[in-house]
Amino acid sequence: MEELLVIKIGGNIIDDEEALSSFLPSFASLEQKKILVHGGGKLATDMAGKLGVPQQMVEGRRITDMDTLRIVTMVYSGLINKNIVAKLQALSVDALGLSGADIDLIRAHKRTGTEIDYGYVGDIDLVNNEKLESLLNLNLVPVVSSIVHDGKGQLLNSNADTIAGEIAKSLSSAFKVCLVYCFEKTGVLSDPADDRSVIRNIDEAKFKQLQHTGQVSSGMIPKLHNSLKAVKSGVDKVIIGHARDLPDIISGKSGTLIH
Amino acid sequence: MEELLVIKIGGNIIDDEEALSSFLPSFASLEQKKILVHGGGKLATDMAGKLGVPQQMVEGRRITDMDTLRIVTMVYSGLINKNIVAKLQALSVDALGLSGADIDLIRAHKRTGTEIDYGYVGDIDLVNNEKLESLLNLNLVPVVSSIVHDGKGQLLNSNADTIAGEIAKSLSSAFKVCLVYCFEKTGVLSDPADDRSVIRNIDEAKFKQLQHTGQVSSGMIPKLHNSLKAVKSGVDKVIIGHARDLPDIISGKSGTLIH
Repeated sequence: MEELLVIKIGGNIIDDEEALSSFLPSFASLEQKKILVHGGGKLATDMAGKLGVPQQMVEGRRITDMDTLRIVTMVYSGLINKNIVAKLQALSVDALGLSGADIDLIRAHKRTGTEIDYGYVGDIDLVNNEKLESLLNLNLVPVVSSIVHDGKGQLLNSNADTIAGEIAKSLSSAFKVCLVYCFEKTGVLSDPADDRSVIRNIDEAKFKQLQHTGQVSSGMIPKLHNSLKAVKSGVDKVIIGHARDLPDIISGKSGTLIH
Repeated sequence: MEELLVIKIGGNIIDDEEALSSFLPSFASLEQKKILVHGGGKLATDMAGKLGVPQQMVEGRRITDMDTLRIVTMVYSGLINKNIVAKLQALSVDALGLSGADIDLIRAHKRTGTEIDYGYVGDIDLVNNEKLESLLNLNLVPVVSSIVHDGKGQLLNSNADTIAGEIAKSLSSAFKVCLVYCFEKTGVLSDPADDRSVIRNIDEAKFKQLQHTGQVSSGMIPKLHNSLKAVKSGVDKVIIGHARDLPDIISGKSGTLIH
């Protein structure tokens, strides 16, 4: 099976022009078929501040009222997405920006019945893997923002980590998928203060041990849990590492491998 | 040759939720292959106002400094484009939002050497008709915003009328293209105050006569000039009419036909 990279970058890269300018050429140089998934970061919060729309985060998730939905749609699918696409095109990557509404890529439903009202936040139901495959077969490189839709005309805010995971799973029967989470650390660390303390391999047993000992940071637990779930659903491997080290984490020289 | 509709809608429809909600089902019901091109309108001006970025228009063109470019990118390619796409998907139209940077669709260069410095405004060099054709062949319906790029990583603001014309021309060797300009009048009027005074047919000779007599409004002259140029470049026909009358202008029952 042909290899496919699904690479997620977070706010720490998007917010930092220098980091983005160094990441994109690394991404461009990867010869495999590939998909880039991006979140938003501070730009949306800054924009909300300028527009006087108060923002509330609960466990890292943005409470998304109607005004906030308009802001994240503008910032994620407009400003950030199109700038990344234009920069990739300049690097000879035939990038195509997508939200979850385009080609009906990601169908979701508004989160309801939770203790907290998250507003216009979507939980993913379905990835249109067939349409995505036809775009990949045209040698296009999808650049996916974290805005999804409900199929009834309503856009919804979602989470880029989850989107990357769902896309990876949905394509795992057609491709040998490597899911890569780029963040601001060199990998999963046994000592959060020490960038050299990367745990290089995590499997089910190791994860249980880490959970048990409380060795890794609590924010890392859901990421690892989702990664293991992705592997169980057919994704070949998941890598967590620093965006700066992209070529090395893909070749296995650095980062944490979840398998 | 298969028929293709390239339909441009302007700010008057986008700014008016009711007009848009009535236009999109009409658009959805058209059975031909089709492309929707949209501009921005007041939403970008409103957003600039809220963000305290002064706007300057010269002959209907927006002077686009860096802050304004960010705003139009957000509003046109993010907010407006993704909302139209989500609404079309709800109408079973397999819409795909595109800026000119996506799939390298529209390459342009920054306008220079003019008396007025328009800032980040792009004049179109090239439409990537082959890539656009492959998307149409996947039965996708492109929804194109008026943001283009220079191929060197820079986004540029452009004009939706011009984009629709260039797309129509670029596809005229592969399709029998009908280019439709939807606006707030029932067609080209011989008396601007009378919506019933539609000039139903305009050809080169008629255009010269209208220019000579000063019968049509001066704002209409460049539109007609471009329409005749499009027809000369292979576009089968151009129609100018009211968005509300979409089915009727396509079937030739109303609007102005330029041929």
